[in-house]
Amino acid sequence: MAEKIKKIALLTGGGDCPGLNAVIRAVTRTAILNCGYEVIGYKFGYRGLYNNDFIPLTLETVSGILSKGGTILYSSNKDNLFDYQILENGKMVRKDVSDVAVENLKKEGVDVLVVIGGDGTLTSARDFSRKGVKVIGVPKTIDNDLASTDVTFGFNTAIDVATEALDRLHTTAESHHRIMICEVMGRNAGWIALESGIAGSADVILLPEIPYDINKIVEKIEQRKSEGKLFTIIVVAEGAKSKDGDVVVSKIVKDSPDPIRLGGIGNKLADDLERLIKDHEVRCTVLGHIQRGGTTSTFDRILSTRYGVAAVELINEGKFGQMVCLKGDKISSDSLENVIGQKTKQVSPKGELVMIAKKIGTSFGD
Amino acid sequence: MAEKIKKIALLTGGGDCPGLNAVIRAVTRTAILNCGYEVIGYKFGYRGLYNNDFIPLTLETVSGILSKGGTILYSSNKDNLFDYQILENGKMVRKDVSDVAVENLKKEGVDVLVVIGGDGTLTSARDFSRKGVKVIGVPKTIDNDLASTDVTFGFNTAIDVATEALDRLHTTAESHHRIMICEVMGRNAGWIALESGIAGSADVILLPEIPYDINKIVEKIEQRKSEGKLFTIIVVAEGAKSKDGDVVVSKIVKDSPDPIRLGGIGNKLADDLERLIKDHEVRCTVLGHIQRGGTTSTFDRILSTRYGVAAVELINEGKFGQMVCLKGDKISSDSLENVIGQKTKQVSPKGELVMIAKKIGTSFGD
Amino acid sequence: MAEKIKKIALLTGGGDCPGLNAVIRAVTRTAILNCGYEVIGYKFGYRGLYNNDFIPLTLETVSGILSKGGTILYSSNKDNLFDYQILENGKMVRKDVSDVAVENLKKEGVDVLVVIGGDGTLTSARDFSRKGVKVIGVPKTIDNDLASTDVTFGFNTAIDVATEALDRLHTTAESHHRIMICEVMGRNAGWIALESGIAGSADVILLPEIPYDINKIVEKIEQRKSEGKLFTIIVVAEGAKSKDGDVVVSKIVKDSPDPIRLGGIGNKLADDLERLIKDHEVRCTVLGHIQRGGTTSTFDRILSTRYGVAAVELINEGKFGQMVCLKGDKISSDSLENVIGQKTKQVSPKGELVMIAKKIGTSFGD
Amino acid sequence: MAEKIKKIALLTGGGDCPGLNAVIRAVTRTAILNCGYEVIGYKFGYRGLYNNDFIPLTLETVSGILSKGGTILYSSNKDNLFDYQILENGKMVRKDVSDVAVENLKKEGVDVLVVIGGDGTLTSARDFSRKGVKVIGVPKTIDNDLASTDVTFGFNTAIDVATEALDRLHTTAESHHRIMICEVMGRNAGWIALESGIAGSADVILLPEIPYDINKIVEKIEQRKSEGKLFTIIVVAEGAKSKDGDVVVSKIVKDSPDPIRLGGIGNKLADDLERLIKDHEVRCTVLGHIQRGGTTSTFDRILSTRYGVAAVELINEGKFGQMVCLKGDKISSDSLENVIGQKTKQVSPKGELVMIAKKIGTSFGD
Repeated sequence: MAEKIKKIALLTGGGDCPGLNAVIRAVTRTAILNCGYEVIGYKFGYRGLYNNDFIPLTLETVSGILSKGGTILYSSNKDNLFDYQILENGKMVRKDVSDVAVENLKKEGVDVLVVIGGDGTLTSARDFSRKGVKVIGVPKTIDNDLASTDVTFGFNTAIDVATEALDRLHTTAESHHRIMICEVMGRNAGWIALESGIAGSADVILLPEIPYDINKIVEKIEQRKSEGKLFTIIVVAEGAKSKDGDVVVSKIVKDSPDPIRLGGIGNKLADDLERLIKDHEVRCTVLGHIQRGGTTSTFDRILSTRYGVAAVELINEGKFGQMVCLKGDKISSDSLENVIGQKTKQVSPKGELVMIAKKIGTSFGD
Repeated sequence: MAEKIKKIALLTGGGDCPGLNAVIRAVTRTAILNCGYEVIGYKFGYRGLYNNDFIPLTLETVSGILSKGGTILYSSNKDNLFDYQILENGKMVRKDVSDVAVENLKKEGVDVLVVIGGDGTLTSARDFSRKGVKVIGVPKTIDNDLASTDVTFGFNTAIDVATEALDRLHTTAESHHRIMICEVMGRNAGWIALESGIAGSADVILLPEIPYDINKIVEKIEQRKSEGKLFTIIVVAEGAKSKDGDVVVSKIVKDSPDPIRLGGIGNKLADDLERLIKDHEVRCTVLGHIQRGGTTSTFDRILSTRYGVAAVELINEGKFGQMVCLKGDKISSDSLENVIGQKTKQVSPKGELVMIAKKIGTSFGD
Repeated sequence: MAEKIKKIALLTGGGDCPGLNAVIRAVTRTAILNCGYEVIGYKFGYRGLYNNDFIPLTLETVSGILSKGGTILYSSNKDNLFDYQILENGKMVRKDVSDVAVENLKKEGVDVLVVIGGDGTLTSARDFSRKGVKVIGVPKTIDNDLASTDVTFGFNTAIDVATEALDRLHTTAESHHRIMICEVMGRNAGWIALESGIAGSADVILLPEIPYDINKIVEKIEQRKSEGKLFTIIVVAEGAKSKDGDVVVSKIVKDSPDPIRLGGIGNKLADDLERLIKDHEVRCTVLGHIQRGGTTSTFDRILSTRYGVAAVELINEGKFGQMVCLKGDKISSDSLENVIGQKTKQVSPKGELVMIAKKIGTSFGD
Repeated sequence: MAEKIKKIALLTGGGDCPGLNAVIRAVTRTAILNCGYEVIGYKFGYRGLYNNDFIPLTLETVSGILSKGGTILYSSNKDNLFDYQILENGKMVRKDVSDVAVENLKKEGVDVLVVIGGDGTLTSARDFSRKGVKVIGVPKTIDNDLASTDVTFGFNTAIDVATEALDRLHTTAESHHRIMICEVMGRNAGWIALESGIAGSADVILLPEIPYDINKIVEKIEQRKSEGKLFTIIVVAEGAKSKDGDVVVSKIVKDSPDPIRLGGIGNKLADDLERLIKDHEVRCTVLGHIQRGGTTSTFDRILSTRYGVAAVELINEGKFGQMVCLKGDKISSDSLENVIGQKTKQVSPKGELVMIAKKIGTSFGD
């Protein structure tokens, strides 16, 4: 079966993530050097597949990209070809244009499509697989919240960036007896906050999975004060919430000609703590997209390379409709039918890392 | 005169700044190894001087602190002993307690007081000098806006941090065709935004000194689009403002039981641009205190060490009431009487660095 | 059983390794905050145990050390109390002084000894266990070559340093069409060379486990030249050797009044290649101890913290004579009797990572 | 005069240096965006000029290179077209081929040649200027030893790398009571050793300009021991030498079928100290080319950009035969006739930085 493969195509979908280029490079080099495949890359995710917008991927095109963040194929966030927004007779309508994509693949003689993306992107990959397209999936999520694989690339780079920020905040917090809040990524899963909090020696870690009680945080600050520690470092996932169910709106439009972007949970927490604690200044840093970009970490370069080589091996073994994954420290694979729709992997409030953090004295505000 | 000196004291005031510890170390080592002085350090700036709260500074105490951000002497922001808030007969009152400080210096046998701080801290230093205290000043401002010295320590570390953040934002902006805004420090002077903007290859740099026209920024983004560049990087100083005189309030209290902390100029700009430009996502990162903390840069370690050694030399030469400064690349000094009250050094809209940035195509929104 | 524990002691032995301080901190904090144990630390490994030279370990002593390389307890390389070199009657003799150590532990009321170290240090730990001392082991090897645990702390930091060096060498190699050799640690096992080579995009990786043929390296360089790549990056483990069995002596003493320290395998290889390839300059960098020191990586801080907490849990469970280890991504433990004497874990020439590197085009000189 | 300029060419010569690409980018962008010049770049320095081997430099070609080490134009080390080695009638001969270069410039319609390079490269630039070619020079030396300019780009990046290495060596030295030697670049001038030594808190700094006495180093180590500091950090410039005039040969060929590359002054010093001091291990790291490569520092990116823009301004002002330079913190220029042949700028044994280092206790072995 595999011996008939002549040409493969790659695309990247969803938010960018350090390691995407390393996967593209590993797939391309392995396919060319070992199997003699021709390789092309569709630009802007599925949108490029619809528009037949692609570039050839050669040893030359993938040279020097191993450590570079982002994706040389660009990405788009919301394009689902099974429910795609297009202009028809002067009106925007949504329709299933997946047949156009299948047609484009045939026209270009693409035998296998390698899709690198998160849940949404891989759902489409499964749907293309159901339509008979030979598809291989590579999982991507900077939040590390995919149930089907133990570790995803990009996560290590993100916690490196967050930990370095916490290191920096420590010295300035200590000098001024400040409460420093650092808001990190993690809308539904708090892995980045949890691991960077442990590595960056945070005193308080707030996660979406463990609703916090603001009074417990105040207690922790007071307890530290009583031990002579006049500063406190708090790392908070963007999706963390209080037990009272406070909602942090991201826009105020009501009664305002000029909608205002708010600072998110980190800034809300800063306000709350400033009201409750009199003699400390509270400061908030929102790391935002610097967690996604820049030089890919050593760990993520290796993991991405393993994923990329494994994707080509799945092709060679004819295991289409599968996704590469990591189980323990072994590369493995699973069918897209199985992995799609699985619940995301959240931090367990009784899991090992939370318990470890608690044992060394970290508060989760619970 | 200088031969009578036996004991000197150090204090750090105002916001912390990478390099403070390097100055403390250089003063201490030079004073002990070359002059046989005893050295002590008052804690929490002038507050420690008032409370006679100090630690001995020895070769041991200053060991290993050269590269460490913050200050081992701690700092406080607002304490002016000439107008100090104290509790008297159950009421908080403000009064001049500077005599207490002078008395404490005498009691401890301190011959010279070395004060490391910004404008406010050095104003008090001058006032103590007028009262007959032998004072040496060392200038500190992370914003690099002191008129009396060409470069101040901490500034290089701050632009390193901001530039690294811009580097990271580039890869993610490029992958998604986003407009990325990075808000950096600089309330009255835009040096950090200007230099990190040049070093980090920002397309738009917004400074307090050059009010911006939002339409010019939109034009720049459109022009880039027409050249095939679908992303734009904007660095904005926290004190930047538009020509329309928009005020970014930092709190909304009106009609709200729960005051809300806003995201500052960066987030306001993000909102404005999202309204004006339809097909780009706009994202904002607020670097905040990570610009102040962490490992001190090589450049700042050397500059701080030069300042510290020079401060002891001023003592040995009996040049009291003076402040060390850097002119071109030479260490020099100036009298505190001269330097206090000078206007801060702002970016000139026609200065070399702005003109250079414009020549390589950077927009200042003007 | 565990409830009788009141006091525990720590020591670090062998070469230092990023993460040692993180283990010391995690053990100390967990023991104090959760169990109420008193904690002390012997200085200079077993030598301190013999001399009864220790410091108390408190929340204060371990504050701020999480990210710091080295060990606050110091280490010594060669001290085996079961065969210890001491001065007796004016002569240096070797004898078993382990009873002195046992006596010291009793005298200080130490209930459990936590030993952090490599093969040699843990062998002594087992021997103390045989003498009835309650011992817990924590494995340490920067080379990642312990058979009994999947990953050891320090290794990730070492490959980060090596990878960053390779990144730097790339730009300069490319500009000048040079052959750049980077010699990294790894006397018996080539893990650091292998992983940093993959992450740092080395063209050639040379390991102790895969003897190289110099002609194959020359072939690789020529092949790259024919593809228009005029530079080559080689990473070589210090223990790599050629198929011809060349021995690289580290000292020439013969016929020399002035022994000369040679540059090791990296420099030898540079000489060999310069003779064989005419039109390329060859340059060698020997990373040496910068791979061991400095700020501990995020990954290693978390792993060390997990090890430290797990060590205290073994104490609480009364599992003495055990060593903590990592299996897959789970913390586990094994008896010291089992782990001592196991062959070190070497790179398998047919293992996953070697095969991956080969598939993306890396040469191992075989 | 300047209005007639239509096309300019760039070339880079000599050893590579962080900042070269930033200069190329600044020249290209300024020339295209402000003056409408066409820009080309000769490859491999003067060799490309001889072979008429060039690429167009456009906004696209220079996109993304600001922070990248190396040079996109490549460089060559030894090519002097006034005394060039070529094959003629089957024999290698040296002859003046500069007329070929002048002819090529004419043929391509190049009006001005911008030469970025060190002493050798700029000497040729002057010689082309004498032949009537319109030349602008940009000085480059990572050693910072050009007399005609106060600071050169690349130097700050090099001391950053060296300082980070010293930071790393500190933790491991401290844990083991070792003497750690770090050999850095600087054959004739010790600026890198001096500044990284101050920033990296070296106990001993050895420079070409201050011959050392090995006994003074031993004294320093013993003095530290007596103060309880059992480790010592030594930074040594590759061109440092002892007062005894020891010569460190880089090859032993005598009596050897297999010449051996030695480790340089750092390794020699390690041997000498191990013989003289019994109870310390001595370890040496040779940083080599990692000091030249990788990401360009913030400081160097700004300086290079200033140089590049200034070079185009010299063209616009018709100031040919000039070289841009930095005096204090101002960009200026000087004629190539003046600057060529000036003695290199060495560290003065009585200069400010040496005196500062001595005052904080650093030994120079003198």
